[in-house]
Amino acid sequence: MATAERAAGARAPEQFARLRQLLAEAVDLGKVAGLLAWDQRTHMPPAGAPARAEQLGTVARLAHERFVSDEIGELLEELRDYESSLERESYEASLIRTVRYDYEKERRVPAALRAEITRAGALGQSVWEKARAESDFAAFLPYLERNVELQREYVACFDPADEDYDVLLDDYEPGTKTAEVRAVFERLKEDLVPLIEAIGDAEQLDDSFLRGSFPIAGQRAFEHEVLIAFGFDEESWRIDETVHPFAWNASLADIRLTTRHREEDLHSVFATMHEFGHGLYERGIDAALERTPLARGVSLGLHESQSRMWENLVGRSLAFWTRFFPRLRETFPEQLGGVALEDFYRGVNSVEPSLIRIEADELTYNLHIILRFELEQEMLSGSLALADLPDAWDARMKAYLGIDVPDVADGCLQDTHWAGGAIGYFPTYSLGNVISVQIWERARADLPDVEEQIARGDFAPLREWLREHVHRTGRMFLPGETLERVVGGPIDPGPYVAYLRQKLGAVYGL
Amino acid sequence: MATAERAAGARAPEQFARLRQLLAEAVDLGKVAGLLAWDQRTHMPPAGAPARAEQLGTVARLAHERFVSDEIGELLEELRDYESSLERESYEASLIRTVRYDYEKERRVPAALRAEITRAGALGQSVWEKARAESDFAAFLPYLERNVELQREYVACFDPADEDYDVLLDDYEPGTKTAEVRAVFERLKEDLVPLIEAIGDAEQLDDSFLRGSFPIAGQRAFEHEVLIAFGFDEESWRIDETVHPFAWNASLADIRLTTRHREEDLHSVFATMHEFGHGLYERGIDAALERTPLARGVSLGLHESQSRMWENLVGRSLAFWTRFFPRLRETFPEQLGGVALEDFYRGVNSVEPSLIRIEADELTYNLHIILRFELEQEMLSGSLALADLPDAWDARMKAYLGIDVPDVADGCLQDTHWAGGAIGYFPTYSLGNVISVQIWERARADLPDVEEQIARGDFAPLREWLREHVHRTGRMFLPGETLERVVGGPIDPGPYVAYLRQKLGAVYGL
Repeated sequence: MATAERAAGARAPEQFARLRQLLAEAVDLGKVAGLLAWDQRTHMPPAGAPARAEQLGTVARLAHERFVSDEIGELLEELRDYESSLERESYEASLIRTVRYDYEKERRVPAALRAEITRAGALGQSVWEKARAESDFAAFLPYLERNVELQREYVACFDPADEDYDVLLDDYEPGTKTAEVRAVFERLKEDLVPLIEAIGDAEQLDDSFLRGSFPIAGQRAFEHEVLIAFGFDEESWRIDETVHPFAWNASLADIRLTTRHREEDLHSVFATMHEFGHGLYERGIDAALERTPLARGVSLGLHESQSRMWENLVGRSLAFWTRFFPRLRETFPEQLGGVALEDFYRGVNSVEPSLIRIEADELTYNLHIILRFELEQEMLSGSLALADLPDAWDARMKAYLGIDVPDVADGCLQDTHWAGGAIGYFPTYSLGNVISVQIWERARADLPDVEEQIARGDFAPLREWLREHVHRTGRMFLPGETLERVVGGPIDPGPYVAYLRQKLGAVYGL
Repeated sequence: MATAERAAGARAPEQFARLRQLLAEAVDLGKVAGLLAWDQRTHMPPAGAPARAEQLGTVARLAHERFVSDEIGELLEELRDYESSLERESYEASLIRTVRYDYEKERRVPAALRAEITRAGALGQSVWEKARAESDFAAFLPYLERNVELQREYVACFDPADEDYDVLLDDYEPGTKTAEVRAVFERLKEDLVPLIEAIGDAEQLDDSFLRGSFPIAGQRAFEHEVLIAFGFDEESWRIDETVHPFAWNASLADIRLTTRHREEDLHSVFATMHEFGHGLYERGIDAALERTPLARGVSLGLHESQSRMWENLVGRSLAFWTRFFPRLRETFPEQLGGVALEDFYRGVNSVEPSLIRIEADELTYNLHIILRFELEQEMLSGSLALADLPDAWDARMKAYLGIDVPDVADGCLQDTHWAGGAIGYFPTYSLGNVISVQIWERARADLPDVEEQIARGDFAPLREWLREHVHRTGRMFLPGETLERVVGGPIDPGPYVAYLRQKLGAVYGL
């Protein structure tokens, strides 16, 4: 990209330097808020919570105030001519364009509404925890109503869009329209529901060896070996235990994964590979973007494409386990000594409709998302009365996955997103699945030996390809543009459906 | 203290509420800067350092800007009448008085000078690391000269004091004069040098059992048991490994100790007890002071009195080891199975003049400090040319401790303080030793059974006494006033000298 040279050559006006300085401070404060949250979820003694909430509030408020300052607005105006003089693809033009996009959105929303959304979300979340534990939807309902009402007020801050839901989706997947997502999801539903049914009629696989007793020290040692092979190094990465795993980075050279181990099953290895994918995306962003708002993955969907790639396309492949199953068997000889590689591979790819999204297999996961995407639109428009949410949920679970929901705790109360006020977030999970295979196909075209490399434990070619083609531009372009630059076209569910049909068809002998 | 009730009753003017709000934000930012530093020293991957320096710089600058804002100055002026109407001991009067003290000091120093002191200190520290590794004083000399010059410029920002050194000392021990410290240290020198000589002439003790092979897991388990008995709990405390141990707290209910273990010796248990003392001080501050500048230990000297109390007065006492030596012997039966309690007790109290301050025993430690205090004054006044520092250092090491310095690395280059630009910090270590025994004598008068309690492993009475008499008021009063309130008089080396003579006299059979 050679951004530094180009910046030097372009004789940027002094307003550009000033903009960069103000943005660097705002980015620093955003990262600091992130550290407060990371620390809270990994290390903080519990009694530190009330003071931490104040600290987070102070830093988040300052970061926001500094970003929406009049001075940044004036600089963006003064830089219009400069921006027009630049190539659209240049670092400078991308910075000005992206910051203007963010700035205009941020300025639309009154501080009081933002504060109320945060407050209602925090309250909703604490009420939800109790309501879920007691399977008490009625207790949660008023808080859900308040969150939805506030999301409608939020939508009203913006110019009318094709659909109200577009405004919410834009916060997670900038520039993407509800209609595009709907078209992708309709195709998925059409193709995946019959595939689920066909698998349901096939002979079921034995994956009982994934449950048993796997001492956590062994799990950690095995995952460490995988991570090191993937590209994790102690100079720039760390991994900690937490309750709900996530990835975060303090800067482009300071990547922090989290994971959670349970002695009774082996699934944390997939969660760890998933978080590695998120971390690698941030690690691959061009260092020249550091301390700018461009130094982040471009959207939740693209981010999820990277985590899903390492979790599923790499981590559930026969090539990967050809290399690593012997090591896993050495780690847990009593539990896995009698299991053949091929049976293990089939086991980690088994499909079974289930109640809980975060425990779902690679295939049925998408139906959990589609259901939520459809309900969110109906909740926002008011066509679904919120009191009727449990019935609507249960009906769709039956229609898409063929299963009965015994209880709201395992039904519409299972996720935290709506409790916290986040509507429009869910679809990005399945967009990530779809995109991951589009990118994978491009990588395979450029790296014809990638499967042999993986089977040898050599992940450098794939990692470098991803950095060069996907990661390094960060937020320079919109998600749709970023995808276009990588795969040469828009989002397309075709490759993902073909991949699932082929892999699962072989696994289940369909 | 019932500060909350009093605040409610006092009908504080709205300016007081506004002041509290501004201070709370400044305190939050200060704590956030602390978290950035704690994370850097305990968890941060090394490659995160450059971005972390920028983040720290941004937060420290904002915290400073907000604290020295004109608005805080105006509020302090407008609150003068209110302050006069209050009891001096009230929370409100203490807050206004302490903030005015800090504010007037902070405003005296131009931002450019502050920035240059920070910059030169960071540079000095990196040059010093290399110079120490290579025993190259000449390489370090220009950076030391720059640091001293900047400290002189700093002094010149203030009204003339009795002695220039007073201005620097005030940053670490507010309100304390160089002359007071000198009087204390003269007395220590007079009494302790002969004691060191007498011990040198006595039969030496065997403490070889403190060195050997002590697996770190065992050390940790033993220290954990000690900490739990002391009052450490998982709700509000944590402990991590680091290179140079320190204690820090994210808030009054979030206390973080650090320590460092080496398999070849047992000394980390004393370092851990030391850091516990620092942590307990902060933990004991009245929660009503949270998010104000009063929510901190009052000075480095008082802080050190608390760490030294737990390390030495508790942690090197016969009572303590009566309870805990059997547990330590169970932890390391091969290494300590043949050692008697009394021999162990004598061993951990052995005295031997040595080169390195941080490895020194309880008695000779003070001479390391006195030497530095004297040299600092001469460096600041210019009566000692900085090029002559190594010779002056070595001569005093010979005079006070009777030992020859083979090398600047183990001589005047051993500490980081001067490299980082901190002059006036060292004396607080020995002030802490002196004060620790003054407070201990008061505690013993109120708790006549304290030694029996310690021998039973019951530390609650001592802990509660310290909270009530020493900790809870935080920075409400100056260090001298705080001490006066606890012991009824000024700093006095008498009890400390008597304690050392008595304990070491018995240990060495003098």
